Amino acid sequence: MARYLDEFIIGDTFESESYTISREESLAFAAAYDPQPFHLDEEAAARSMFRTLTSSGWQTAGITMRLIVESGVLRETGIIGTGIDELRWLAPVKPGDTLRVRGEIVEKSPWPGSASRGTLRVKLATFTGEGVVVMTQIANLIVPQRPAG
Amino acid sequence: MARYLDEFIIGDTFESESYTISREESLAFAAAYDPQPFHLDEEAAARSMFRTLTSSGWQTAGITMRLIVESGVLRETGIIGTGIDELRWLAPVKPGDTLRVRGEIVEKSPWPGSASRGTLRVKLATFTGEGVVVMTQIANLIVPQRPAG
Repeated sequence: MARYLDEFIIGDTFESESYTISREESLAFAAAYDPQPFHLDEEAAARSMFRTLTSSGWQTAGITMRLIVESGVLRETGIIGTGIDELRWLAPVKPGDTLRVRGEIVEKSPWPGSASRGTLRVKLATFTGEGVVVMTQIANLIVPQRPAG
Repeated sequence: MARYLDEFIIGDTFESESYTISREESLAFAAAYDPQPFHLDEEAAARSMFRTLTSSGWQTAGITMRLIVESGVLRETGIIGTGIDELRWLAPVKPGDTLRVRGEIVEKSPWPGSASRGTLRVKLATFTGEGVVVMTQIANLIVPQRPAG
């Protein structure tokens, strides 16, 4: 069942389950999408800004997406993003870290010229098991309007 | 060799090589990071907004990162992003599409309170072989200042 725009209330919050990044997955993501020595090699990582092996910030973004999809907050409404504002990587993520996402609906509006769609702005924070916020962003999503009648 | 802040000029542009997303890679990324039926299954995709199988927008972001790393624009200076502004997914990416990235330095500034670092803002456009711009964003990067003396 789809979830329609009228069911979202500004100020509504949700929280996802958690996901632990394995070392293997961290290295595989970096090799494919962010092939920098400090994401791929312990020694290079020891000489880098973070002094230890870190995961790509884009992998944090991907895991955040997965956790939102799996949270079911949009039910069968697909999560179609038109864009992201103010994405900030606030702290490094390391292999072995467990991530979780908290979201808050901050804005909703009709889609100009369309009776069937609207948009939601959702403020998202991704944080570790220790409560460290590693990434924040505002996602802009397309959400269907409830069919008339 | 690192590339220092003083070597970047506002208005400088660069262009990456290209990368073709295979169907296998598109499905694997979606399964791990964006497990929605329209990214995973032809039939569900045919009923979706785009009427055909599409890749995750986050995979487009990942491939964009890879192309920037491989372009060597920052040489041995690691690409450390503090965040992204105004990311927009403008058109769907489909398995088999070939992506390329164009970048332009739009701003540079010293890091408050640090003689050793500065920041660059880089406007990025990711486009297909047919010239369709599929994603734009402004990346905020940390770049070292040239050591004194």
